[in-house]
Amino acid sequence: MLRVVLLGQGMVANHFAVGLERIKQGELQPYGVPLADFPLPYRIEDIEVVASYDVDEDKVGKSLYRIAREALEGVPIPKTLRDIYVRRGVHLGSLRGLPFKASGLEERMSLAEAVDRLVDEWRELGADVIVNVITTERGVEFGDLGRLLSVIESDERDAVSASQLYAYAAARYSAEVRPVAFINVIPSPLANDPAYVELFQESRGVVLGDDGATGATPLTADLLEHLAERGRKVRFVVQFNIGGNTDFLALTIPEKNVMKERTKSSIVEDILGYDAPHYIKPTGYVETLGDKKYVALHIEYVTFNGLVDELYVNMRLNDSPALAGKLVDLVRLGRLAVDAGLYGTIYEINAFYMKKPGPKGSKSISKIVAYHRMVEWLKKKVLGRLPARLPSS
Amino acid sequence: MLRVVLLGQGMVANHFAVGLERIKQGELQPYGVPLADFPLPYRIEDIEVVASYDVDEDKVGKSLYRIAREALEGVPIPKTLRDIYVRRGVHLGSLRGLPFKASGLEERMSLAEAVDRLVDEWRELGADVIVNVITTERGVEFGDLGRLLSVIESDERDAVSASQLYAYAAARYSAEVRPVAFINVIPSPLANDPAYVELFQESRGVVLGDDGATGATPLTADLLEHLAERGRKVRFVVQFNIGGNTDFLALTIPEKNVMKERTKSSIVEDILGYDAPHYIKPTGYVETLGDKKYVALHIEYVTFNGLVDELYVNMRLNDSPALAGKLVDLVRLGRLAVDAGLYGTIYEINAFYMKKPGPKGSKSISKIVAYHRMVEWLKKKVLGRLPARLPSS
Amino acid sequence: MLRVVLLGQGMVANHFAVGLERIKQGELQPYGVPLADFPLPYRIEDIEVVASYDVDEDKVGKSLYRIAREALEGVPIPKTLRDIYVRRGVHLGSLRGLPFKASGLEERMSLAEAVDRLVDEWRELGADVIVNVITTERGVEFGDLGRLLSVIESDERDAVSASQLYAYAAARYSAEVRPVAFINVIPSPLANDPAYVELFQESRGVVLGDDGATGATPLTADLLEHLAERGRKVRFVVQFNIGGNTDFLALTIPEKNVMKERTKSSIVEDILGYDAPHYIKPTGYVETLGDKKYVALHIEYVTFNGLVDELYVNMRLNDSPALAGKLVDLVRLGRLAVDAGLYGTIYEINAFYMKKPGPKGSKSISKIVAYHRMVEWLKKKVLGRLPARLPSS
Amino acid sequence: MLRVVLLGQGMVANHFAVGLERIKQGELQPYGVPLADFPLPYRIEDIEVVASYDVDEDKVGKSLYRIAREALEGVPIPKTLRDIYVRRGVHLGSLRGLPFKASGLEERMSLAEAVDRLVDEWRELGADVIVNVITTERGVEFGDLGRLLSVIESDERDAVSASQLYAYAAARYSAEVRPVAFINVIPSPLANDPAYVELFQESRGVVLGDDGATGATPLTADLLEHLAERGRKVRFVVQFNIGGNTDFLALTIPEKNVMKERTKSSIVEDILGYDAPHYIKPTGYVETLGDKKYVALHIEYVTFNGLVDELYVNMRLNDSPALAGKLVDLVRLGRLAVDAGLYGTIYEINAFYMKKPGPKGSKSISKIVAYHRMVEWLKKKVLGRLPARLPSS
Repeated sequence: MLRVVLLGQGMVANHFAVGLERIKQGELQPYGVPLADFPLPYRIEDIEVVASYDVDEDKVGKSLYRIAREALEGVPIPKTLRDIYVRRGVHLGSLRGLPFKASGLEERMSLAEAVDRLVDEWRELGADVIVNVITTERGVEFGDLGRLLSVIESDERDAVSASQLYAYAAARYSAEVRPVAFINVIPSPLANDPAYVELFQESRGVVLGDDGATGATPLTADLLEHLAERGRKVRFVVQFNIGGNTDFLALTIPEKNVMKERTKSSIVEDILGYDAPHYIKPTGYVETLGDKKYVALHIEYVTFNGLVDELYVNMRLNDSPALAGKLVDLVRLGRLAVDAGLYGTIYEINAFYMKKPGPKGSKSISKIVAYHRMVEWLKKKVLGRLPARLPSS
Repeated sequence: MLRVVLLGQGMVANHFAVGLERIKQGELQPYGVPLADFPLPYRIEDIEVVASYDVDEDKVGKSLYRIAREALEGVPIPKTLRDIYVRRGVHLGSLRGLPFKASGLEERMSLAEAVDRLVDEWRELGADVIVNVITTERGVEFGDLGRLLSVIESDERDAVSASQLYAYAAARYSAEVRPVAFINVIPSPLANDPAYVELFQESRGVVLGDDGATGATPLTADLLEHLAERGRKVRFVVQFNIGGNTDFLALTIPEKNVMKERTKSSIVEDILGYDAPHYIKPTGYVETLGDKKYVALHIEYVTFNGLVDELYVNMRLNDSPALAGKLVDLVRLGRLAVDAGLYGTIYEINAFYMKKPGPKGSKSISKIVAYHRMVEWLKKKVLGRLPARLPSS
Repeated sequence: MLRVVLLGQGMVANHFAVGLERIKQGELQPYGVPLADFPLPYRIEDIEVVASYDVDEDKVGKSLYRIAREALEGVPIPKTLRDIYVRRGVHLGSLRGLPFKASGLEERMSLAEAVDRLVDEWRELGADVIVNVITTERGVEFGDLGRLLSVIESDERDAVSASQLYAYAAARYSAEVRPVAFINVIPSPLANDPAYVELFQESRGVVLGDDGATGATPLTADLLEHLAERGRKVRFVVQFNIGGNTDFLALTIPEKNVMKERTKSSIVEDILGYDAPHYIKPTGYVETLGDKKYVALHIEYVTFNGLVDELYVNMRLNDSPALAGKLVDLVRLGRLAVDAGLYGTIYEINAFYMKKPGPKGSKSISKIVAYHRMVEWLKKKVLGRLPARLPSS
Repeated sequence: MLRVVLLGQGMVANHFAVGLERIKQGELQPYGVPLADFPLPYRIEDIEVVASYDVDEDKVGKSLYRIAREALEGVPIPKTLRDIYVRRGVHLGSLRGLPFKASGLEERMSLAEAVDRLVDEWRELGADVIVNVITTERGVEFGDLGRLLSVIESDERDAVSASQLYAYAAARYSAEVRPVAFINVIPSPLANDPAYVELFQESRGVVLGDDGATGATPLTADLLEHLAERGRKVRFVVQFNIGGNTDFLALTIPEKNVMKERTKSSIVEDILGYDAPHYIKPTGYVETLGDKKYVALHIEYVTFNGLVDELYVNMRLNDSPALAGKLVDLVRLGRLAVDAGLYGTIYEINAFYMKKPGPKGSKSISKIVAYHRMVEWLKKKVLGRLPARLPSS
């Protein structure tokens, strides 16, 4: 069994918990799970959500069943989710500026006490993997592990974000209880923060991240690779996207939008080899769109003999399921990495699944290239070192 | 030097000859040439067009300069093309049904005599590579080398297409004069015909093909790979394309359209692993579009948790330059293969550059995957076996 | 009350019958009904479907409830449709070439007897409006009323289509029983056939048609008008569309496709004032698309100072509901015209609702212009001559 | 002759001046001019640009020929533009925040003196029409004529924008020298400011505006009308647009963007009759796009029987020529209105040509409807009152 703790019971967590149960009950094919047909030692059926944390007063104390039923209109909600209740997590301003009533553990105790409490709860749950899917928040890397440790010790609440505190707790749990994988699919820099990579290495744990690669950016990456391989000179790239879920609402707050823009724009120079003029960022919020996202992309490039071609892409896609399907792999890969003793962070996995793959300074590469490198890496480095099908832990 | 003979002085040949000269004269960057920055032993500057063949009475006897000036509005035509005159080639009905007055060598002599004449001319020119870019014609594979030889011997004109006779002549030249590479970028099956692959092996030559991968199909291949790698279940693929050049005009003749549809549709099952419902074929002809092509693509797929996403792509692209840029690589790769003694056909090259990569029975793979495999192959198998920069031949 | 007889119980008839009942029961807003908020004397609630005809052996004898439940996945089907059973109509080859087992009245009796039988049944039902929504069939105008009469009299089955025989029966009913409106929303020429217009005038009935304007063509018409009013010179128009319903399947049969292409292409010259190069026709069939249709449109035009602009439109639309919503108006307008004594056909109505508005020789105009002219006409010519709210008939 | 003064020698003024001369010299068709074929008493050939004003130090003192040659790459520039030199106009902060060195008359004299100087110059030139195409600036309506007059008198530079001062000077000229038409095609409220409408009425002049309707918004208006006329319920409208000219650069300054957003968004409720959720605003700036604009539009609506359709539009259009072509009409219509004594502002003209048609409180209507109303109005109110072809003034 593979015990998963969710941080942030929003749309992604809802789709993950619901989709997973439906697949386990045989009523759904595992579409949208990249490695569904790949012989990983952990099967999808081995995954079990054992707890969820949030700070929205409308969610804390409710069952995942009730939350998912309200959030996922038209989707049948498995009754097995009735027994998982949302626990109170840390807030640290992560929902500031959004229309939610939020309250976190840190309002009731010191940061150090909150960490202790989380570690205790996870010990009791026997957590194997911890998944961070809280709403996009502001976050600045620590860089230096010493500074991170001192900030928590001295209870400097303004200097640490919710994700950073959760990840610190995970590392502590990893060192004290059992090695754990921490999966960070939001933009907060963790796998890109040398302080955290060092912390997880020392704690014999794994941190994967940052910013789960869904939506338009992975496709843009592959389109740019496609053009680059043909020697076409890109004159500009424009990519708009708009949605109606909490993440898009959060991105109307400029400081949060900046977090996204940074990870999205790096692909242009990394893949093309030159910094083609571009406009790539979350563009707006229209509530009626809900969890659906509209993406418009326009690329102009020079082809052979100096002529100019034009490419237009429009997409309508469900934002959260795209990420939820990837989590089905990430929790298994994170655990596999822990089993194989590959502590710290792992570029080969991050490069495919993340928009801003850690460790810091890593290049964005096209997703098709990243996929094939990851599969090669899995075959050579991980699967060879593990029994084909692991015993239940 | 790398001496190239062109078969078919249409738009692709015009862009190839003109773009090549402009690059050599330093007035143009080699955009649209996939391996422009890759350290191949043959440089772009080494390529020289030494002859061109056609059967259109409006072209035979004219200089490439004059033909290109009429065909490529707005593009400066290098004066170096004034010295190359179009020679009469073989027709064998390849322009039947199109509004051109065509007349081929076979109206003046037997097939065997036409072959002799071509071999003689190429000997005089010292041809290294022969490029087949005649208009899409009907063509059925021979399969058996014996049958091919007997057809030519017994002068059965209805049983052999222009491309097949040209390729036969190239193989004869390869065996009798010097090893040659024959590049087939039209749909006629040559690299996919076991008879021709055997013939070139025996003749110590190389045949690359079939059907140069330009336009929408390579992009569709990469988009399908992108979806497949995410485990998304494709519900259908629709791909329309319309243009105004001779190739689109030819495709309004149903038997020629079938040639294209076959190569385009195979990508769906080969890449996805199942035959998703699809409609992929050249759709129409509007003269005003000229060499520009309009492509519309629509894909619907199932993502995680059973939800449905939609993808729309629209393109406006210059059809012939896309292929002409690839020819700049193909003539160099063909010659390299000959130098390295890799006779017959070469899947690693075909898989990236061709829509229907030979040998027969080969799978279509995504172009990004094909590109990286080809580069690996080049590094290991070809470049290692050759001096870094070849002496002029 | 306004008693409606449906000819052809396909997707359009299903959506019409189901949507109408749902609106009457208050569970649905009348979206998609152009004149829903216009004070027509007949309200939507006055419309009642009293009978339906088909020749598909899988449908004849079944209730509309059962047929709609199988055809409209995910739509709640009103139980009031349980009491309407599909009657056998005339076939005359209208489903030839399609994978249905079809059998018509004409296999059991002469044409004249079939007409008598229809007139008798409609008398019993008290039909006010007859709606023709059978699958696109081949049909050639008679032009001369005498020839039409003689064809039926002499039982020449190959010289008359199902629509033509139905319309003849309607005219007979109009003359003998009560004035009736015949609404023809398929391409068969009726409102465009002088023979039929004369026949309905003499029979004190109304024929509206031909070919209901739904899908991409009305939008293309308005886009062309938009460009024309700005003096922009259209260089070409490309419009593809593909679907998965019976109508698209029928259009894979070339002779039926021609029927559509003709009506679609006339808009270009009629609206622009010159025949811009264009490719506008139903393009393909992919069953998985079902009743959804994918449309891709591309227009290039010259703007001020000789510069060139480009416009791309992509649509995903439900094909049959678009027409069904218009039928909610057409049956009311048809009846109003009869009440007002406006016999024959009525360009003001046809121009907005039809792709090929009768009478013969009428120009296609943009739909926005047609709408406003129709509304003016309704205010002046029809509403002024009628009581504001008619008594139930 | 129709003497035109241009305010703001940017891209629109360049295209207007160059396109006009090319049409007059017979080397260009008048494409992009809505009323090119309409028998207005003033012909295109009657228009003459007599002066131009700007505050960019790089432009003041240069000839229109030189400015246009640098700005319009690839367009032949008529030599007749060599004799028109750019004069210094008023700045009043209109280019603040943009990377131009700007200096206006008001740095050299009081506002009242600047007005006197402009009136004197226009008297000398015999100006008939004054066209305002300066870069989008911040501007707040006066509302009250008294306040406007006192602001100028007391030299309150922060309370008046460049457009407002220019328009005031035009009104003064109209009252003192000869009736004039002032055409305002930027968002600053003039035709929407009751103070200015009253001022022009009193001065026996005409003010047309505001914000010339080009680009995506007129098309969106017609698409919304198209949907509204079919009773379709719009669920949301998203419209992005991005460009690379000065106007887009200006719109990256939030207070200027607000000016545009306001005029663009009003069309939704005005045309649909309800305020469908929407996101319609200039979205970004990428210099490489130059004067080309990329527009992406997405509309989702409910059709009959509760089903949902989707519409996507992508455009690549030349921004400035679209407006320049409309100016060819507006200067003629403005002068005609003056000739006909229709002082103040004229909704019938504004409704078609403007995004925010004055007078204040006017509804946005669809452009196709506006066009036909304007043509009716022209036939009835203007052409009937004037000789068919006016003598040169």
